Amino acid sequence: MAVNAARTAYQILEGGEVRGAAVFQSFIMALIALNVLSVIVETEEWVRVQYGTYLEWFEVVSLCIFAGEYALRLALYRMRGDRRRFALARFAVSPMMLVDLVVIMPLFLPFLAADTRMVRILRLLRIFAIFKLARLTDSMAEFGDVIRARASDLTLAFFVLFLVLILASSMMYYAERDAQPEVFSSIPASMWWGVVTLTTIGYGDTVPVTPLGRAIGAGVAILGIAVYAIPTGIMATAFNEYRRRGRGGGSCPHCGRSIER
Amino acid sequence: MAVNAARTAYQILEGGEVRGAAVFQSFIMALIALNVLSVIVETEEWVRVQYGTYLEWFEVVSLCIFAGEYALRLALYRMRGDRRRFALARFAVSPMMLVDLVVIMPLFLPFLAADTRMVRILRLLRIFAIFKLARLTDSMAEFGDVIRARASDLTLAFFVLFLVLILASSMMYYAERDAQPEVFSSIPASMWWGVVTLTTIGYGDTVPVTPLGRAIGAGVAILGIAVYAIPTGIMATAFNEYRRRGRGGGSCPHCGRSIER
Amino acid sequence: MAVNAARTAYQILEGGEVRGAAVFQSFIMALIALNVLSVIVETEEWVRVQYGTYLEWFEVVSLCIFAGEYALRLALYRMRGDRRRFALARFAVSPMMLVDLVVIMPLFLPFLAADTRMVRILRLLRIFAIFKLARLTDSMAEFGDVIRARASDLTLAFFVLFLVLILASSMMYYAERDAQPEVFSSIPASMWWGVVTLTTIGYGDTVPVTPLGRAIGAGVAILGIAVYAIPTGIMATAFNEYRRRGRGGGSCPHCGRSIER
Amino acid sequence: MAVNAARTAYQILEGGEVRGAAVFQSFIMALIALNVLSVIVETEEWVRVQYGTYLEWFEVVSLCIFAGEYALRLALYRMRGDRRRFALARFAVSPMMLVDLVVIMPLFLPFLAADTRMVRILRLLRIFAIFKLARLTDSMAEFGDVIRARASDLTLAFFVLFLVLILASSMMYYAERDAQPEVFSSIPASMWWGVVTLTTIGYGDTVPVTPLGRAIGAGVAILGIAVYAIPTGIMATAFNEYRRRGRGGGSCPHCGRSIER
Repeated sequence: MAVNAARTAYQILEGGEVRGAAVFQSFIMALIALNVLSVIVETEEWVRVQYGTYLEWFEVVSLCIFAGEYALRLALYRMRGDRRRFALARFAVSPMMLVDLVVIMPLFLPFLAADTRMVRILRLLRIFAIFKLARLTDSMAEFGDVIRARASDLTLAFFVLFLVLILASSMMYYAERDAQPEVFSSIPASMWWGVVTLTTIGYGDTVPVTPLGRAIGAGVAILGIAVYAIPTGIMATAFNEYRRRGRGGGSCPHCGRSIER
Repeated sequence: MAVNAARTAYQILEGGEVRGAAVFQSFIMALIALNVLSVIVETEEWVRVQYGTYLEWFEVVSLCIFAGEYALRLALYRMRGDRRRFALARFAVSPMMLVDLVVIMPLFLPFLAADTRMVRILRLLRIFAIFKLARLTDSMAEFGDVIRARASDLTLAFFVLFLVLILASSMMYYAERDAQPEVFSSIPASMWWGVVTLTTIGYGDTVPVTPLGRAIGAGVAILGIAVYAIPTGIMATAFNEYRRRGRGGGSCPHCGRSIER
Repeated sequence: MAVNAARTAYQILEGGEVRGAAVFQSFIMALIALNVLSVIVETEEWVRVQYGTYLEWFEVVSLCIFAGEYALRLALYRMRGDRRRFALARFAVSPMMLVDLVVIMPLFLPFLAADTRMVRILRLLRIFAIFKLARLTDSMAEFGDVIRARASDLTLAFFVLFLVLILASSMMYYAERDAQPEVFSSIPASMWWGVVTLTTIGYGDTVPVTPLGRAIGAGVAILGIAVYAIPTGIMATAFNEYRRRGRGGGSCPHCGRSIER
Repeated sequence: MAVNAARTAYQILEGGEVRGAAVFQSFIMALIALNVLSVIVETEEWVRVQYGTYLEWFEVVSLCIFAGEYALRLALYRMRGDRRRFALARFAVSPMMLVDLVVIMPLFLPFLAADTRMVRILRLLRIFAIFKLARLTDSMAEFGDVIRARASDLTLAFFVLFLVLILASSMMYYAERDAQPEVFSSIPASMWWGVVTLTTIGYGDTVPVTPLGRAIGAGVAILGIAVYAIPTGIMATAFNEYRRRGRGGGSCPHCGRSIER
């Protein structure tokens, strides 16, 4: 009987095919969304003044619900069928459970921090509730798989980006430091220009003014197209393969043999 | 006889294979283009002063034509062959008919608004005439189908973008609020920076100045490449499939029979 | 004999398989590059002061060579084998010949303009010599074919971009005109913001400051990703097809039958 | 015996299947990373003041190790199996060996430069150590091959970019030079605007202000999408092919035999 109730509770928590699971999942999702929204709007002065008390009450209530969910997940750890030793400990340190723990941390505020500044930072942790959504969206996991399959290409692309960034920033530092000693004061400072340029953001707060600096900047900008085009190219290919694999992985409908598409 | 005339009128309106249909469509298209142009140039002070009266006359005349077109479409609703109940009501609330209605709204200005400010806003509604063009372009409907086929991927991509935006803006708010309390006054204000950075626009009106803020900004900028590359990748794949489907599919390498891809 | 000489001259001009053709083509290409460079550097004050006379002499000499080339091409028009009436006239108004004519226009300056300002503008025409390079590069013609094959998709994409631009600029005009009447003075003025934002350039000279304006701006920026991703997706598909076709158009090396790739 | 030792040393240097090779490679890689980091942080005033002496000692020691590695590579040149004449000279001028030589140049400072400014520039050469990493990463070589296979397409794309850049900058110079004679002082100066716009960076330091200039700028910006989309499209295709080739090719739909694609 108790086992049955536990199984039902587990399936509701994990989004199984039980009555109430869909309702519970939607409720948690809405609670997450409202908490994130609450953290965001609370930073507006007039919202804090007018609705601060209501938002704090909402925070306490929803964190208690999240805490209950966390405790229940922990309690039902046996349902996962992990027969190894320290199954509970292993489960407790899994990424999703750690996110859950971090989110409910502000509940323990009175025990953790006396300093009001620290309290504020801790209360901000609620925004990590947004990661709890990851558990609810299967498609994002698939998405992640696709990208992970290209991890080596992407890592290489970002390594090349990093290499170009270091060389570009060093050259720009030597070209501009006499003309703008405040802006290009060191290579790390110059790397701010590098990142802003290579990603084509171009805020305009750090801009080369000497002819040599502009020549280097123009070269980096044009090179930046290539650096930018590479990850996009990798992604396009990744999605292309993902779609092909998704459409059945290829077996001929007539003879049934597998086809490489 | 009257039925025949109605059928001809219907086919002219809908761009059928009747004499005059192409002429009528071109005329309406030109009228739409001129109306949109008129709304745009009318906002220039000197145009309003010099040609205001002519433009208002043009507006009244063309809105009357649009109103006539609208009335005729409504009157000929039986031609659509919708045998369900409330066919007229269903037709009247279809998106294209609502756009048509909105466009001719300024005709009813004297009955709707006395306030001159309200009048101005209402007259602006004419710019929605641009959506009337959608009816005339079949290829745009196809285009929309292609994109809609990837709606789930795109939604997910925009959800990830939104998630990154919230986290990046929150972090930037905590990093910069002491140094620039005016600019990064709250998370919603900080999200302006987030959007401008993640979309690589980089106006330069809100820029991190602290080392921590710049480190976070650099990370977000580099992450922004990936976030940007994903929709482009999805689009490239969508167009690739759209072209292939157009070319008629392939054939099994083992048995040689054709396969729908 | 004369016919032979004419044929040789024609083949040298058109880059045929004759001795001297490659040398002549390289010479013309270098002359074009030097002329374009000359137009560019001549706008630098100190270059004009120090080397102005030499550059003008170089201009006259090279334009005479281009004029000779133009005259020779015209004279040898029969070699093209166009047996239709008005073959010479048809040839004279072909795009490449018009470019050639425009480039040598500054030679007729004394007859065309007395005003020094006009003279300057006319002398600038030499920069169009860069288009003469198009004749020399076959691959660019192929490149153009690829893009032209997608002309309808690209036109549609640019039409959508234009539509979004008009709507975004109109909305931004109504949102910001009270707060920044100088910057967002009219819809055409507001369209400068629209173009700069949708293309993700983001100069920062026209930026929304009101909450409503920023909300619209954020929406447009995010929509801008999609608008930007579409032409890239079309191009990626176009190049994909171009490569496939280029690699042999598909015939099996074993059985010789054609394969759709 | 000595031959054996030489062979082992060679395999350790080149990352062969010998004990110690992996350790040595990791050690060199870490040394390179630390040297690059050292060049970067040394430009920060407070780092130079506090840790300058340590960093200089670290520099001398690591350059000695690099010099030893360089000498050993040279000494073991016979192991490469190059039986041609001047094998040593050929090897010494190979790109990787030149990079190695440049990196250790600062060691010869006392003999090369007395001037402190020159000394500084020379010490910066250490940052080229980052190119030494290229030897250690096979995948980057493959990456390079992929891109090189498209060299002609990319060259053409960059040539078109260059052409658009020259025309856009020339037009903008003529449109803006009266309104902003300081900013658009010449075509080369105007090309800074051109590069910053076509790459969608948009710093905002050089921006058209006249209606004509803005109209040209808007056209260039929209054209810039196409220019930008082309390299991305080429890259997407390149990666697509790279992946397909990796998966082994296809088979003929008629006879079923495998085809190298």
